Amino acid sequence: MAYNLLKGKKGIIFGALDEKSIAWKTAQRCKAEGAELVLTNAPIALRMGTINKLAEEVNAPVIPADVTSEADVTNLFEKTMEHFNGGVDFVLHSIGMSINVRKNIPYTENNLEFTHKGLDISAVSLHRVLQAAMKLDAINEWGSVVALTYIAAQRVFPNYNDMADGKAMLESIARNFGYYYGVQKKVRVNTISQSPTLTTAGSGVKGIDGFINFAEKMSPLGNANADNCADYCVTMFSDLTKMVTMQNLFHDGGFSYTGVTPEVIESMSKE
Amino acid sequence: MAYNLLKGKKGIIFGALDEKSIAWKTAQRCKAEGAELVLTNAPIALRMGTINKLAEEVNAPVIPADVTSEADVTNLFEKTMEHFNGGVDFVLHSIGMSINVRKNIPYTENNLEFTHKGLDISAVSLHRVLQAAMKLDAINEWGSVVALTYIAAQRVFPNYNDMADGKAMLESIARNFGYYYGVQKKVRVNTISQSPTLTTAGSGVKGIDGFINFAEKMSPLGNANADNCADYCVTMFSDLTKMVTMQNLFHDGGFSYTGVTPEVIESMSKE
Amino acid sequence: MAYNLLKGKKGIIFGALDEKSIAWKTAQRCKAEGAELVLTNAPIALRMGTINKLAEEVNAPVIPADVTSEADVTNLFEKTMEHFNGGVDFVLHSIGMSINVRKNIPYTENNLEFTHKGLDISAVSLHRVLQAAMKLDAINEWGSVVALTYIAAQRVFPNYNDMADGKAMLESIARNFGYYYGVQKKVRVNTISQSPTLTTAGSGVKGIDGFINFAEKMSPLGNANADNCADYCVTMFSDLTKMVTMQNLFHDGGFSYTGVTPEVIESMSKE
Amino acid sequence: MAYNLLKGKKGIIFGALDEKSIAWKTAQRCKAEGAELVLTNAPIALRMGTINKLAEEVNAPVIPADVTSEADVTNLFEKTMEHFNGGVDFVLHSIGMSINVRKNIPYTENNLEFTHKGLDISAVSLHRVLQAAMKLDAINEWGSVVALTYIAAQRVFPNYNDMADGKAMLESIARNFGYYYGVQKKVRVNTISQSPTLTTAGSGVKGIDGFINFAEKMSPLGNANADNCADYCVTMFSDLTKMVTMQNLFHDGGFSYTGVTPEVIESMSKE
Repeated sequence: MAYNLLKGKKGIIFGALDEKSIAWKTAQRCKAEGAELVLTNAPIALRMGTINKLAEEVNAPVIPADVTSEADVTNLFEKTMEHFNGGVDFVLHSIGMSINVRKNIPYTENNLEFTHKGLDISAVSLHRVLQAAMKLDAINEWGSVVALTYIAAQRVFPNYNDMADGKAMLESIARNFGYYYGVQKKVRVNTISQSPTLTTAGSGVKGIDGFINFAEKMSPLGNANADNCADYCVTMFSDLTKMVTMQNLFHDGGFSYTGVTPEVIESMSKE
Repeated sequence: MAYNLLKGKKGIIFGALDEKSIAWKTAQRCKAEGAELVLTNAPIALRMGTINKLAEEVNAPVIPADVTSEADVTNLFEKTMEHFNGGVDFVLHSIGMSINVRKNIPYTENNLEFTHKGLDISAVSLHRVLQAAMKLDAINEWGSVVALTYIAAQRVFPNYNDMADGKAMLESIARNFGYYYGVQKKVRVNTISQSPTLTTAGSGVKGIDGFINFAEKMSPLGNANADNCADYCVTMFSDLTKMVTMQNLFHDGGFSYTGVTPEVIESMSKE
Repeated sequence: MAYNLLKGKKGIIFGALDEKSIAWKTAQRCKAEGAELVLTNAPIALRMGTINKLAEEVNAPVIPADVTSEADVTNLFEKTMEHFNGGVDFVLHSIGMSINVRKNIPYTENNLEFTHKGLDISAVSLHRVLQAAMKLDAINEWGSVVALTYIAAQRVFPNYNDMADGKAMLESIARNFGYYYGVQKKVRVNTISQSPTLTTAGSGVKGIDGFINFAEKMSPLGNANADNCADYCVTMFSDLTKMVTMQNLFHDGGFSYTGVTPEVIESMSKE
Repeated sequence: MAYNLLKGKKGIIFGALDEKSIAWKTAQRCKAEGAELVLTNAPIALRMGTINKLAEEVNAPVIPADVTSEADVTNLFEKTMEHFNGGVDFVLHSIGMSINVRKNIPYTENNLEFTHKGLDISAVSLHRVLQAAMKLDAINEWGSVVALTYIAAQRVFPNYNDMADGKAMLESIARNFGYYYGVQKKVRVNTISQSPTLTTAGSGVKGIDGFINFAEKMSPLGNANADNCADYCVTMFSDLTKMVTMQNLFHDGGFSYTGVTPEVIESMSKE
C-alpha cells in the first residue's frame, strides 16, 4: 500500500547494510512513496553488505562516506546536491557501533578509547552530518532528519553496554541541533526509539534473542519490526508532521510505558 | 494535498464546536483522506456551535452525547455501529473544560466540586468512552484512539489552572487503557500534546494571548496550529503508525524541549 | 542513629494505620530526629488501626480528619496550630485508596463513581490539605510537604488499577500547588515514589506478593522498605533540601531506571 | 548548623578550584558533618586555584589527578586508600569543561575534536573514575557517588553549547555504572542537576548573567546556590538516602517543572 506521501521529495539514507536493515526497508518504503534517494554507508559496510542490490531496486546512486570523516561527509552532500541539482528533504541516520560490544568487554571494564571511537560513529556523526549539511545549505526548508535510537538511552539494559551512553548523547545532539536548524531553516530533527530488531548488526549483541523475547512479552502490541519502522519514518519525512521536532519518539508497541505484565510476574514466580 | 491515507476507515470525532476547533479541522482532513465519519459533541455544545455546517461538509451524522453519561456514550457507539454496519477504526477525543477556569477561581482557591466536574468531562470521559467501546467491541483491530492534551500535564503553566491536573490524569488513562486495549485487540491509544491554540474554547482562558506569544517565541518552528494538528492526527489514525501506543506525543514546534531562547533572555534583561 | 535533623520542627503526619505503615515509621523517625508531631487519619482508620500506641510513643495528639471534608481538614489545621501555638514545618501525605481495587473490579470495567471517590481521597485530598493550610497560613516559611506516590503514575502496572491515574493526578497537584506555595511562602512540595511496600493497605492489592518479588529482582539495591522511606522523608523535611521542590523523587533501589536484568531475561527464557 | 551526618565517613572531592566552587563548599560541609576527606583536581587547576587553603581548612591531603588519565585516577585511589587505610564512602564528581565554549565556537560549528576532549573530561571521566574504583575495590559497601550536572541534558539552553551533550552522556554513565555497582556492591550513583551557579568556571560562559537572572525568575524558590548544593550533597552521602540510586535529582528551586511564570509572559508582552 502506497500513498505518494513523499512525492517529489529527495532524501539520503545512511546505514543500509543488507535486507534486514531498517535503513534498507526505509529506503524501499520511501521509494514506494515517491521519493528519490541517495544511499550511503561506510566503505567497509559497502563491501560487507549487499547495498548494490538495493541501489538498483530503488534506482539510487551509492556514495560512500565514513561518518567519522568530515571530508567524506562533506563530499557526500556535495555529490548528492549535484545529483539532485539541489538540496534534500530528508535524511535517515541509522548508524551505531560499539567496539566494546563486539569484543565482549563488560561495561565496567570498557576500553575508553573504544568508547570514544564508538561514540564518534554512533553519536558525534549526527553532529558531523548536520554541520556539513548546514554549511552547504544541503537540507531544504521544512526538511526532516530522523536518527534511530534505543530506550537504553533512558534506562539500563545490561547487554546494550556503552551503546547506551552513545544513544543518550545522540538524542541530545538531535535535540540541540534540532533547535538551531529549526530556528535557522525550519529543518526538524527527531529520533525514533525502536523496539529491539534482529538486524545483522543487532545479531552481534550477546543475549539478543532472550532480550527480544522479553521485549515481545512486555509490549502490548508486540515488538515493532523493521517494516513498521520504515512506515513510521515515512510519516516523519512527510509534510504531515511538520511541527514535530526535537522529540524522541518511542516506536515499540507500548514497551516504553509498560512497567510489567502479569506474564512476566508469573514467569518469575515459578522460580 | 491528500493521500488517501484513511481510505476505507471509519471514525468518530468528539469535540468539533466551530471552525476554529482542532476537532473540526481534523474531521475535514480525515474526510479528505478518505475516511467516513460520525460527529459528536455535548448537547449544549451542539446548540452553541455550528456543527451542522461541518456535518454537511463531511457528510456525517451528528450523534449527541454527554461524555459524563454512560448511557449517552453507549448510545453513541451503538448508533455509530448501526450507521457503519460495524466498528470504527479511529476516535478523536478533543474535550476539555474547567469550571474553575471559567469562573476565574485561582488554583489555590479552587472549588473542588468544580474540579471533580471538570475532571469528569476532561479526563474520566476518556475512560468512559473506551470502556463503552470495549464492552460493545466497537473499535476494530489495530484501531487508533487519540486524545488531545497539553504540556501543563508535565510542567506548571499558571493560567492553565486545574486543567493541568485533568490533563495529567487524561494521559495516565490513555496509557493504562492503551495497555489493556492493546493486549486485548491491538487497539492503540495515544495523546497529542498540542501547542496552545486559539480555539473558541481556548479564548476563555485568561492571559491566553500573552501566553501564545511566549510559546511562539520559545518554539524553534513557532506554534503548531490547528491545521498542523489535524495533519498529525491523520498520521496517527493511519496504518503507518501501527506500533505507536501509550505515548504522549508533543506537537509543538519544539517548545517542549527548548529550555530558553536568547530572545527570551534578552527581553527579560531589559527589565 | 539520630542526628537532630528536625530539632525544633513541627509536623503533621497523615495516614499512620499500624506498625507496618510508612507513615508510622516516618513519625517514629521524625520524633527521633527531634520533631514534635500531630497525627491524623480518617475516623474509620483510627478505629481499625492502632494509632494510639504510636501517639503515646511519639507523644503526639491524634486529631481525626476525613480528607474528603474541607471542614475536617480545616479543623485539623486549626487544632494543630493551637497545639503548637503556631504553624507547622512539614506535612506527610500518605493516603491512598481505590474502591475498584478493593472490589476487584478490573480497570477496563471500573465503576467511575468509585474512581471519583478514590481520586478524592488519594489525590484531590492533597489539594484540599494545601488549600486549607494556605488559607490559615498554617505552614511556616520553607516548610516541606511530602506526598507518597508510586511509579504506576508513569508506567502501567496492571494490578495497580485506577490508583495509577490517581497517583498521576496527585503528582500533578504536588507540582502545581508547589509552584504557588513556593512563590507565596517558600513552601516546597514533593512526592516520593516508593518501592512497592507490604503495608496493611498494600496487602489488599491482588498479586502484590509476586509483584514485590519482581520489583526486588529488578532493583539493583533491592526494594526500599518502610524504614528506608522514613529516613528519606526526614531528609526532605530537613533544612538540607531547601531548594528541592515540585519534584517526584524515586526511592526504589534503582528500579525506575532499570530496563531489565539478566535474571529476568533468563527466567523468561526458560518458558 | 551541623548534625554529624557523615561521622566516620571518608570521601574524595573532585573539582574544588576556589572559594566559589560547589566542590569547595561541599568539602567544607562534609568536614563539618564529620567526614574525612581527600581533595583532588587536575594539575593545571591546582596551579590556577587556591586549593591549598581549603586543604588546610579541612585537614585533607591534595592528590593531583588528571581525570583523562587512567594512571592518574588509579594512583589517586591507591594513595587515598593508603591514606585512609581502607576504602571511601563517597565521591563527588564536579568536573566539566568545553573547549568549544571557551573558544566561543557556536554549537553548529563545533570543532568535533574539541567535543571529544570536552566529553572525555566532563563525562567519560566518571566512567574512568568508577572503573578504577571498582577494580581496586575502593568504594565501601553502600557508598555514594554524586556527579553534578545541568538541565541542558534534557532541554536546549543555547549558551550551554556542547556541554549539553556531555551532561546527557554523564547522566547516562551514572545510570549505567550505578546499575552495575549497585548489583555488585550496593554502591549508589546519582547526579544532581543544579541551578546555574556563578562559579569561576561558570563565569566563562557567554551570557551567563542574563541566564542566571532568567532562571532566578523562573524558579518559584529562586536559584539554588552553591551552599544549598553542598547541603544537598551531604544528604546524598548520608545513610538516610541509601536506596536512592541511578537518579537525576533536580536541585533548582523548582525551575525544572515550571513551564512559565506570569512575570516572564509579562516581560515579553512589553516588546
